[in-house]
Amino acid sequence: MNLYSELSPSPRTIMTPGPVEVDPRVLRAMSYPILGQFDPEFTALMNDTMAMLRSVFRTENEWAFPIDGTSRSGIEAVLVSLIEPGDKVLVPIFGRFGYLLQEIAERCGAAVVVLEKSWGEVYDPEEVIAAILREKPDLVAIVHGETSTGRIQPLEAIGKACRELDVLVVVDAVATIGGVPLEVDAWCLDAVIGGTQKCLSVPSGMAPITYNDRAERKIARRKSIERGLRQSGGDSSNDARQISPIRSNYLDLSQLQDYWSPRRLNHHTEMTSMLYALREGLRIVLAEGMETRFARHRLQETALVAGLQAMGLSLYGDARCKLTVVTCVRIPPGVDGESVRSMLLELFGIEIASSFGPLKGEIWRIGTMGYSCSRKNVLHLLGALEAVLVRHGVHIQTGAGVQAAMDIYCS
Amino acid sequence: MNLYSELSPSPRTIMTPGPVEVDPRVLRAMSYPILGQFDPEFTALMNDTMAMLRSVFRTENEWAFPIDGTSRSGIEAVLVSLIEPGDKVLVPIFGRFGYLLQEIAERCGAAVVVLEKSWGEVYDPEEVIAAILREKPDLVAIVHGETSTGRIQPLEAIGKACRELDVLVVVDAVATIGGVPLEVDAWCLDAVIGGTQKCLSVPSGMAPITYNDRAERKIARRKSIERGLRQSGGDSSNDARQISPIRSNYLDLSQLQDYWSPRRLNHHTEMTSMLYALREGLRIVLAEGMETRFARHRLQETALVAGLQAMGLSLYGDARCKLTVVTCVRIPPGVDGESVRSMLLELFGIEIASSFGPLKGEIWRIGTMGYSCSRKNVLHLLGALEAVLVRHGVHIQTGAGVQAAMDIYCS
Repeated sequence: MNLYSELSPSPRTIMTPGPVEVDPRVLRAMSYPILGQFDPEFTALMNDTMAMLRSVFRTENEWAFPIDGTSRSGIEAVLVSLIEPGDKVLVPIFGRFGYLLQEIAERCGAAVVVLEKSWGEVYDPEEVIAAILREKPDLVAIVHGETSTGRIQPLEAIGKACRELDVLVVVDAVATIGGVPLEVDAWCLDAVIGGTQKCLSVPSGMAPITYNDRAERKIARRKSIERGLRQSGGDSSNDARQISPIRSNYLDLSQLQDYWSPRRLNHHTEMTSMLYALREGLRIVLAEGMETRFARHRLQETALVAGLQAMGLSLYGDARCKLTVVTCVRIPPGVDGESVRSMLLELFGIEIASSFGPLKGEIWRIGTMGYSCSRKNVLHLLGALEAVLVRHGVHIQTGAGVQAAMDIYCS
Repeated sequence: MNLYSELSPSPRTIMTPGPVEVDPRVLRAMSYPILGQFDPEFTALMNDTMAMLRSVFRTENEWAFPIDGTSRSGIEAVLVSLIEPGDKVLVPIFGRFGYLLQEIAERCGAAVVVLEKSWGEVYDPEEVIAAILREKPDLVAIVHGETSTGRIQPLEAIGKACRELDVLVVVDAVATIGGVPLEVDAWCLDAVIGGTQKCLSVPSGMAPITYNDRAERKIARRKSIERGLRQSGGDSSNDARQISPIRSNYLDLSQLQDYWSPRRLNHHTEMTSMLYALREGLRIVLAEGMETRFARHRLQETALVAGLQAMGLSLYGDARCKLTVVTCVRIPPGVDGESVRSMLLELFGIEIASSFGPLKGEIWRIGTMGYSCSRKNVLHLLGALEAVLVRHGVHIQTGAGVQAAMDIYCS
């Protein structure tokens, strides 16, 4: 007897900063039968994926491949492979995910120095560069698009300064990849982590990363070969010279890059269906064209913001550093933010997000990312939000929000 | 312009020890649109999955949930959460995946003591118990089904001895869950890791684990709350009492269990589509019935072995501890094992596996796992292998292998 019902998820309009709706072509890709991980047809798909990741990351790096886990597994893989215990790491924090970088770096044994900024703002690059000159860290870890506050940090000047000062810079671009410009090589970023479940519109489950030869040199020094794979008289890289081997096996980039290289040295069992999904998601991004895709994200943001403001709602945070793909809205005084979110979900099938830490109960966060970033979704959300706010006693000039967005689309 | 072709993987008969063919109902489950990770409909599916995992693991443990990564991420999550640097860990090794346990435990900072057994054999439980009495480890880590050699280690006496001696025992049951009996509670196993891409016939990408209150107590002592989630005046579990916090954030079971608890404390973004897949895979296992499923695996093994032996091939390893779901065959003298594998794949679309380390070039490994474990596949493989061996100059009584398997099925 089996008490569990057949899977039958309700249709949702997902307007959070991730996970967002998955492109139906990606869903279809996941439904194909699998190939074995060393099947030449599968390794060819792995190579395709690496090549497409290089295009999307805008890099000539040899190493661009997914970590088999959710976004934070990619962050941890990069940090645990690059940070030796005792290394000094500078983390300029401007929201929740900056604290995550701090936390992971600390667990890697780093001596972490943080900068802290009021949530809702970002750094003038000169502030960060001054801190680098003062602290002389081995590594700087920083967030590009901070979804907890809806802000974007300019990185070009910071990246170039790190290159000049020979400091490694690691960037969390989980929220930005495929949605807003990210230039790994031009901005001199040494290692970058992207996310699948946001602007790429692939389900959560992989974390695309890339890193350059500067990063690789540090990783190579710490390399070991897995015991069960060593052949007698063969590899001897585990010798006494090693000072600080990488603490994780699963997230060890030195072993992972051997698996993603033509050597195909066995490590984990690659996630076949997720790889199908990522390859298809990247193919869709490149088929749309990066510039076209960025313009689409800007257009939906403009319409959404116009609609929200016409409804009389106010936005949170410094407008000069607003992240295109996340719009943070102040919850009107006296309104129960969670009650509004529940009614949107239950009656309209629309999901928006709350926030974390000091912003919990203060703002809603609305994502316009990837496949979810569409006229249909923006208009649907504005109409629904108005209706729900009216039900919650908020005084609103009805109809104005949707009309303001339509003005943008029809102009 | 997009140079990348549409995804169109060739159909394969996958007779390796994993990844194996995915049940079409599981493939279909992955093609459903996603739900948000905190959508009540999604958290209900998470709860279903926990309940089904308890049934499949045969446990009353509160904690039974998937780690979001491939099987070894589950192993590392358990070991990094349970091992404090300096802990003494005993690993009885009898194949590649024993060495993996050693390697991961060492990276966690353990003082590892190993037992080593000739590949192809397993331990008399008394040998392991004697070593536990001698070494007095904090933790024993051991493989249940060793796919590199096709052997199964009896665990009941070892588990009960560990309970009596108050030693934690961690079991890698990646290859056995859903294919051969595994009794977490009855055998007194404290933490167990399963795999998705083997007998459960779900794609690689999640690692179901379970652990009991003995394990949880050790984890709880090492717990911390993520910085970005702490509320002012709220959680204060990160205080000076902590001696050895868990070194990984991504694989920290203390945080993961909060995410899987009714508190739903935010951690990673749950892999929606993989969770759909795992839930459906478990539903199918329970619908078939565990005993019926085990009997199916035994029947296909019997037919496969009869066929291989009738072809004149000899099996590898001690027959008394043969793992039902993996059959290791000696490569006939003078035959290039990789050439046979390639011809099977290219002409017949069938994949079998080679092996690792000292067994590389010595044996083929044939899996009969989950959805791949069928009469159709066994008969198809026996006919194809015969044809390919004949092409490689091996003297074989043609027709005998398939007939011997048919004798089993028709008796």
